Amino acid sequence: MGNVLEIVPLGGIGEFGMNCMAVRYGDEMLILDAGMGFPEETAYGVDVSIPNFSFLEEYRQDITAIILTHAHEDHLGALPYILKRFNVPVYCSHFTAGLAESKLEEHDLLGDVLLHRVEPRDVVELGCFGIEFIRVSHSLVDCFSLAIRTPVGTIIHTGDYKVDETPVIGEPIDLRSFRRYGQDGVLALLSDSTNATVPGRTPSERAVIPAFEEIFAEATGRIIVAAFASSIHRLQIVLDVAQQFNRRVCVLGRSMQKNVEVADRLGYLDIPDGLLISLPQAKMLSDDEIVFLVTGSQGEARAALSQMATQSYKGLMIDEGDTVVLSARIIPGNERLISRMIGNIYKRGANIIEEKRRLVHVSGHASQEDIRIMTEAVRPKFVVPIHGEYRMLFRHKEFVKNHLGYAEENIILIESGDVLELDGERAAVIDKREIGRTFIDESGFEEIDSDTVRERKQLAYEGAITIVVTINTTTGELLAEPNLVSRGVRGLSSNGIARSLDDDNDNVNLFHAARDVVVAALTGASKQTLADDSLLKEHLRVELKRFIQKKTGARPVITPVIVRV
Amino acid sequence: MGNVLEIVPLGGIGEFGMNCMAVRYGDEMLILDAGMGFPEETAYGVDVSIPNFSFLEEYRQDITAIILTHAHEDHLGALPYILKRFNVPVYCSHFTAGLAESKLEEHDLLGDVLLHRVEPRDVVELGCFGIEFIRVSHSLVDCFSLAIRTPVGTIIHTGDYKVDETPVIGEPIDLRSFRRYGQDGVLALLSDSTNATVPGRTPSERAVIPAFEEIFAEATGRIIVAAFASSIHRLQIVLDVAQQFNRRVCVLGRSMQKNVEVADRLGYLDIPDGLLISLPQAKMLSDDEIVFLVTGSQGEARAALSQMATQSYKGLMIDEGDTVVLSARIIPGNERLISRMIGNIYKRGANIIEEKRRLVHVSGHASQEDIRIMTEAVRPKFVVPIHGEYRMLFRHKEFVKNHLGYAEENIILIESGDVLELDGERAAVIDKREIGRTFIDESGFEEIDSDTVRERKQLAYEGAITIVVTINTTTGELLAEPNLVSRGVRGLSSNGIARSLDDDNDNVNLFHAARDVVVAALTGASKQTLADDSLLKEHLRVELKRFIQKKTGARPVITPVIVRV
Repeated sequence: MGNVLEIVPLGGIGEFGMNCMAVRYGDEMLILDAGMGFPEETAYGVDVSIPNFSFLEEYRQDITAIILTHAHEDHLGALPYILKRFNVPVYCSHFTAGLAESKLEEHDLLGDVLLHRVEPRDVVELGCFGIEFIRVSHSLVDCFSLAIRTPVGTIIHTGDYKVDETPVIGEPIDLRSFRRYGQDGVLALLSDSTNATVPGRTPSERAVIPAFEEIFAEATGRIIVAAFASSIHRLQIVLDVAQQFNRRVCVLGRSMQKNVEVADRLGYLDIPDGLLISLPQAKMLSDDEIVFLVTGSQGEARAALSQMATQSYKGLMIDEGDTVVLSARIIPGNERLISRMIGNIYKRGANIIEEKRRLVHVSGHASQEDIRIMTEAVRPKFVVPIHGEYRMLFRHKEFVKNHLGYAEENIILIESGDVLELDGERAAVIDKREIGRTFIDESGFEEIDSDTVRERKQLAYEGAITIVVTINTTTGELLAEPNLVSRGVRGLSSNGIARSLDDDNDNVNLFHAARDVVVAALTGASKQTLADDSLLKEHLRVELKRFIQKKTGARPVITPVIVRV
Repeated sequence: MGNVLEIVPLGGIGEFGMNCMAVRYGDEMLILDAGMGFPEETAYGVDVSIPNFSFLEEYRQDITAIILTHAHEDHLGALPYILKRFNVPVYCSHFTAGLAESKLEEHDLLGDVLLHRVEPRDVVELGCFGIEFIRVSHSLVDCFSLAIRTPVGTIIHTGDYKVDETPVIGEPIDLRSFRRYGQDGVLALLSDSTNATVPGRTPSERAVIPAFEEIFAEATGRIIVAAFASSIHRLQIVLDVAQQFNRRVCVLGRSMQKNVEVADRLGYLDIPDGLLISLPQAKMLSDDEIVFLVTGSQGEARAALSQMATQSYKGLMIDEGDTVVLSARIIPGNERLISRMIGNIYKRGANIIEEKRRLVHVSGHASQEDIRIMTEAVRPKFVVPIHGEYRMLFRHKEFVKNHLGYAEENIILIESGDVLELDGERAAVIDKREIGRTFIDESGFEEIDSDTVRERKQLAYEGAITIVVTINTTTGELLAEPNLVSRGVRGLSSNGIARSLDDDNDNVNLFHAARDVVVAALTGASKQTLADDSLLKEHLRVELKRFIQKKTGARPVITPVIVRV
């Protein structure tokens, strides 16, 4: 151990989402961010994923605090789950605290958690660590980078950021503070890689204003703007342009309403009196007097926009003459959903403005020239790319090496689970921990363990057959006809009645034949097998599996049940 | 009926893939293309989809032929399945026939099918229809548009095309023939919409040559080019540039080897003697003497490229110094897979050239200015956008309306299942048929009916519980403890042994409690219920469902089994 600092990402490095990192020196540990991820396992009743916090159990006594950089779900979404296991104080900005509180309330945790609100340039001393909160720009407000003074040197964790000198709300990124640290010497810069493949500078949040002004000037009917609920700068722009063009704004969708409420209450949004109206009020106005600000830019079936495009959302449907603005990027994996939604909107006769056709969205993440500005301000000994798939981390490294003159050995590529050790001189990955992730069913905030998901995958892939065999305990004699129940098995309906695949009732025959196979297997079984439930189950499973596979090519999950009477 | 032509797309319009269309006049029907689709249901053991050809049953006597425009899977892949139901003659180009034969052979249909090979400008007379095959350019060779003379006028079906005056292989698109039809008068142009959202012209297949020459000039190690196996022009370019830079070519991946073999045998590829080498030969060469031409540009786990990036593919692994060229577009839905594969390739230390960084891929589809050239050559009365999601069809319409001066009523937007009627003067959708699709498990070319997929979805979403109750037939008395089997149910392992969710064996208790619920439900059941299997099953299902949902929030599929002894 000795005098070393350990950095262990629990998620978010080499994968998109689930940003969470442990920073440890001796017996003190900080947790930076607690984000959720967006797994591909949604077909299996899973909504989101979180890091598997079991890894932290052995450090239970060491964890002193959770520090949040900002309020995006991939940095904040796992907060209730980690707090349920490790109830430590949380430090974050006012806006982040506002959304964190709303989340904790849903989990009925609000009264039990200590939430510290900090200001930019505040320094919080936690044991051997001193954490300064540095203001950065991003697509939402009140975001921080963290400058963490440790016994081996200063670490800067950028959080998510871009270099925006003209944000819509609040002050620009505090480059002066980064430069101050740079002058004093920074050991490592843990730096956002999300846009590391993108050349040039990321445009300011203000860059979308002209496109919105044009769209509002042209539109004669209703305007519907879909954006991420957390993109507070964007929401302010829509409010401003609506005011300018004498339109009222009606906010729809649960998360959009929540974020507008929190941002308004905390004074981040500037909303003129009477600008916001309710849906019933909106329905009274004529088409050219209204803007709907809605959720659903990713084509989510249950969100406001999709429902307005296909069926009614609270009595509201997209119609001829409407202008729909998709003011958001496409999150990878959502392409098909979004394309289908756009088709549905066109079918309703509305006009659609997408990012590709007009500048109605800018990223909140640092492009290569932003990365240059940050890295040159901080001038760290080591650059550690964080936040992103390996592809982005690698391109981040490539950029820093080829364009900022860093030596290969001073750019450290790590992934979730890697234990990065820093002693002030050297940086090396000394261990790889299996951390994994936990699936969450958001309807009840319930964890779904990976065994359950694995079983669901098996069922989904080829269906299941349960075979029930009832035998006399003493004689081993079959007491009733074996009972087969099949679900999702190709060519076998659940009740043994033939489906429409063939006309000659092949499937009924197949069911009967399968029963015969089971009877034959029982008849042929040894006394020893008949006496032992596990042996008998395996025997029946193997025989039936072989038969089904031979007859249909299918390999369903086969579960024998032995009833002894 | 009278003197009208009916056009019924069975797939491919308003959706990507499954291109197939019926054209009917009186009691004569042609089928244009028989393509497969790429469904999202892959988690449920489904590989591809095809149109549900049941719709055609009522026209069984009328179908005179299947005409194929080209050999892409989304135009050809359903051919074996439609031929199994309707064994009619097939008309297509030599190259399309080459790939069709290989497909029919896999399905053991080769001896039973009549395959007619046609040349560009051939005219085939089939009853009241006369079909001329017009050469078009696309990403593969020997592609046709179809000019179909019908009693109500001439219909032109573009197939997939772009306007390429300098293809790598063969002659340019035959615009002269299109213009000839334009002068004689064309009733309707059914026109490819895949790239209708893309401004400008689609570059020629030759446009990628400079990038390949640069890459080959720079590379000092092995070069690995991943492309669609069907992109024959691209394959020729790789072969040519390899020859130019004194590298041999090793072709890997089943479909790549098949397509190279067919294209070579039919004389479409120009392969110098000794250029192609086997894998064992390739392994003997030094790194700068070899190019691997491989499948797997979409990140498919079982394809050559992915395997070379993660594990060994026939003893071959990507390594430091290798240059990997992804010479293909990203098919929507594959973004995550591809990004992960790119990460894995970077991890192996190789360099990657993607489409975004250099011009190593061009589309095979008509962009807006290609659409202009085609439409102005043909000058049809009606434009009917085909091939693409509704979004593309709509943008195609927008372009034709706003930039080519067509009136709204002369651009007909249809979708799969629509019955479009043309009488020479008017064009109108007169009916909408429910056609649907059939899922295919490619491992055995087996159809999977939609009921099976629906059951699999239910199982996948919340798992399944089977409850077995054994009762005395005469007394109704319970003869053994109820038996519960659970798979994929949150908090309930398959064997009733608690998982690691809690330390206090809550789940074992839950299993016991569920049994108690079943016993209580049996005790409380009326004589009538006990005597009737369906009533009793429903009673048990409802009681257990209520209990499980209350205790765990889960709603698994519950199947009661009653055994009477």
